Amino acid sequence: MTSWQGDLPFVRTTAPPYYAAILTTALSADTADLAGYVEAAAEMADLAAQVDGYLGMEFARDAGCGITVSYWRDLDALRSWRENVAHVAAQRQGRERFYLGYRARICHVEREYEWSRSTEPGSR
Amino acid sequence: MTSWQGDLPFVRTTAPPYYAAILTTALSADTADLAGYVEAAAEMADLAAQVDGYLGMEFARDAGCGITVSYWRDLDALRSWRENVAHVAAQRQGRERFYLGYRARICHVEREYEWSRSTEPGSR
Repeated sequence: MTSWQGDLPFVRTTAPPYYAAILTTALSADTADLAGYVEAAAEMADLAAQVDGYLGMEFARDAGCGITVSYWRDLDALRSWRENVAHVAAQRQGRERFYLGYRARICHVEREYEWSRSTEPGSR
Repeated sequence: MTSWQGDLPFVRTTAPPYYAAILTTALSADTADLAGYVEAAAEMADLAAQVDGYLGMEFARDAGCGITVSYWRDLDALRSWRENVAHVAAQRQGRERFYLGYRARICHVEREYEWSRSTEPGSR
């Protein structure tokens, strides 16, 4: 599950500043525990997209490790997401079933650059 | 390749504030292009670890998409990394061989939380 916007897997955020929440998770080594994980992650993205101020989400997963970065217009939008009842329930499910642990970081995005083969050099 | 510190795949950073660089990459769909990718990523982490002010790196990769987050004491440390000659050469190789495109974001980390099954609730 990746938030594709066009042909590239990263979110085309507006110019900084805005906020990012980086969630790095240690995933259960028992694949039975991970049944439903991808579906739950997709549901989470659908939920987040309903929050005012949501800018997008990026997701990648290796064996044992997942990184999800969600982007938000401001801290109020991020707070709405963190307090969202369905999100809180999904987090509980994550702790009970999928995660061995996680670290979440709240970040103020100050600068960004983009490069793609088709628009080289294309940074801003 | 993940920066394991103990039993969990996330970096045990010191208390905020510090900086994060989020690199989200679109990877070539041609697996031949990706030969040597994991080795190059590991070399990149080894290089970064030599920079004063490096705090750690987290990495996850799906088909078509990779997310690397590196952590830095301050902007000066991050600048040293961005200007590191070997890093610049590795980035060039990435653009020529592995990446269809990427977006890099420079972030000021304001808060963080940790949870793990073994230390529940364990947030700070």
